[in-house]
Amino acid sequence: MSRFLSWEAQRLAPYTPGEQPQDQQYIKLNTNESPFPPSPKAVEAVRGVEAEKLYLYSDPLCTGLNRALAKRYGLKPENVISGNGSDEILGFAFRAFCGTGTGVAYADITYGFYQAQAALFGLEALVVPLREDFSLNVEDYMEFPGTIVLANPNAPTGMMVPPSEIRRLLEKNPARLVIVDEAYVDFGGESCVPLIPEYDNLLVVHTMSKSRSLAGGRIGYALGSAELIADLNRVKYSFNPYNVNRLSLAAGTAAAEDEAYFQSCCAAVRETRAWTVNALEKLGFSVLPSLANFVFAKSDRLSGGELYGRLKENGILVRWFDKDRIRDYLRITIGSRAQMEALVEKLTELLEK
Amino acid sequence: MSRFLSWEAQRLAPYTPGEQPQDQQYIKLNTNESPFPPSPKAVEAVRGVEAEKLYLYSDPLCTGLNRALAKRYGLKPENVISGNGSDEILGFAFRAFCGTGTGVAYADITYGFYQAQAALFGLEALVVPLREDFSLNVEDYMEFPGTIVLANPNAPTGMMVPPSEIRRLLEKNPARLVIVDEAYVDFGGESCVPLIPEYDNLLVVHTMSKSRSLAGGRIGYALGSAELIADLNRVKYSFNPYNVNRLSLAAGTAAAEDEAYFQSCCAAVRETRAWTVNALEKLGFSVLPSLANFVFAKSDRLSGGELYGRLKENGILVRWFDKDRIRDYLRITIGSRAQMEALVEKLTELLEK
Repeated sequence: MSRFLSWEAQRLAPYTPGEQPQDQQYIKLNTNESPFPPSPKAVEAVRGVEAEKLYLYSDPLCTGLNRALAKRYGLKPENVISGNGSDEILGFAFRAFCGTGTGVAYADITYGFYQAQAALFGLEALVVPLREDFSLNVEDYMEFPGTIVLANPNAPTGMMVPPSEIRRLLEKNPARLVIVDEAYVDFGGESCVPLIPEYDNLLVVHTMSKSRSLAGGRIGYALGSAELIADLNRVKYSFNPYNVNRLSLAAGTAAAEDEAYFQSCCAAVRETRAWTVNALEKLGFSVLPSLANFVFAKSDRLSGGELYGRLKENGILVRWFDKDRIRDYLRITIGSRAQMEALVEKLTELLEK
Repeated sequence: MSRFLSWEAQRLAPYTPGEQPQDQQYIKLNTNESPFPPSPKAVEAVRGVEAEKLYLYSDPLCTGLNRALAKRYGLKPENVISGNGSDEILGFAFRAFCGTGTGVAYADITYGFYQAQAALFGLEALVVPLREDFSLNVEDYMEFPGTIVLANPNAPTGMMVPPSEIRRLLEKNPARLVIVDEAYVDFGGESCVPLIPEYDNLLVVHTMSKSRSLAGGRIGYALGSAELIADLNRVKYSFNPYNVNRLSLAAGTAAAEDEAYFQSCCAAVRETRAWTVNALEKLGFSVLPSLANFVFAKSDRLSGGELYGRLKENGILVRWFDKDRIRDYLRITIGSRAQMEALVEKLTELLEK
């Protein structure tokens, strides 16, 4: 720490991302990437970008990408903002919609970035415990007057609140914004996007890092009323007007347009997830009911930390959070069928020892 | 504006970027892009990236890029942080090093983004007028106790404070940070980077958008003591850990390594700048002494706004700021020789009418 660090920055709670070894010696099941390459059309789009044109700024309005996303979701371009990953979009939303007098509420067990962003903007945060079984009770949020942020499905549990429950939150207090982070919704969850035309107090955040196989392209977006999107743009233009580069714009636009490939990848993940849950349960794991591209599972024999370490020694990376309530669990990304078979084989070995 | 906009976000002062028409019908001399394509090695690097691998996250540490930049500047990788354009880097710096009790000072005529970022983080800003001739007097900052931000060369004037003057600021108060934004330093200016080993209260910010011809790739970086860089990473990991995508990492690394191409582009811009200044002066313009890839010039016949409009009607975009002190000026990017000849030809026509 330098002697110049501001009081506000001292107070930060930086997020620790999953390990990203660059040498690819691991079976990587730790950061919820897709096991599939991006849509061939996205790959082609990147190859087709005239890299010679990179001397020109990218389109700050992200016109093509926002248009493709609007079409995909049956909305208008003014209902869409794109960003450098959904982390950036969440940052814009935390700044736009939370502040003095408007705190933020989120679950005790959820995406760790909400805490980081709340600290970044000095927000008063209400941390609401999930139920004992890790389900989220919307009643716990009913009277909260500030902005509510829900990951749905939740991370790292994979569990989902039905949109009918979120509708109750939206109706209870129209003067309160509900941000639904649907990073993992495409793997069998039910989206709140269809509620957008009905509720102007709903913002839905998506990412192309998971179901669109573009984690390395850094593309996220939010969907909501034109007024909410205008507010987010107000923050964007105060922070980074050219926030999405030319190559990612091309990749993201093509990916948004390739519905068939997207659907087939999501279906494959669901199928492999079912196989994996079954295999883990046979090995004595308790597995939370996941609708995401990962499962959250606890062994009846080894602790989470020990299993994490043993798997890593054996070339398999999973995510372990050394944190109350979930210390015994591992978050395991659903990779390819072959990767999951390798995982199950290794686990069988480790647990039989 | 939605009814959810926070008090802090209402107070923002969003930056208005230069027009970015996507149809390329204009000679674009309005956003200080390079007239040259990126290094052929950067183009090749982008083409060589396996776009199929975009399903994996990019390296949050930007290892390869930071290493290449460190080598280029005779520093260590821990002296470098890379970001999604220098705007993002400036945002990290404003959050890291300014806050309660630590205001920020910058010139009245300078890059408009400093004001936007100060508003974003609710900072107390001291706006220091440049001298009548638009030169910056470091004496005006000598007693200021907070963080000082200087664009050097300054935008939109192109004028430079010699590093020997900045050294005086650094020495005057070692408990005070000086951020030198050298976005335009490569076109003939003298960099403060050589002062970094001597002064741990100096942070230098660069971009690849200008001299490296990668505006559309969005790559900026900061150079400073390991402690300053660690502080910036603290903010980065609270906002967007994977802030640079895979394609831009590849392009930026290759560009940083291609010194010969970089030097030849910068030399060409300097030469065309000299030609342009001479031609503009012949047409009755007063041109500020620029060391950047643009000139700031005032006609003795037509107002800035009128000239801007006439040029646009005639297919040439330049930047005009409708702002006190500089309303009569145009900021004209140094494009290719052919573009500048077209500009001068058109100006000759317009001014003779």
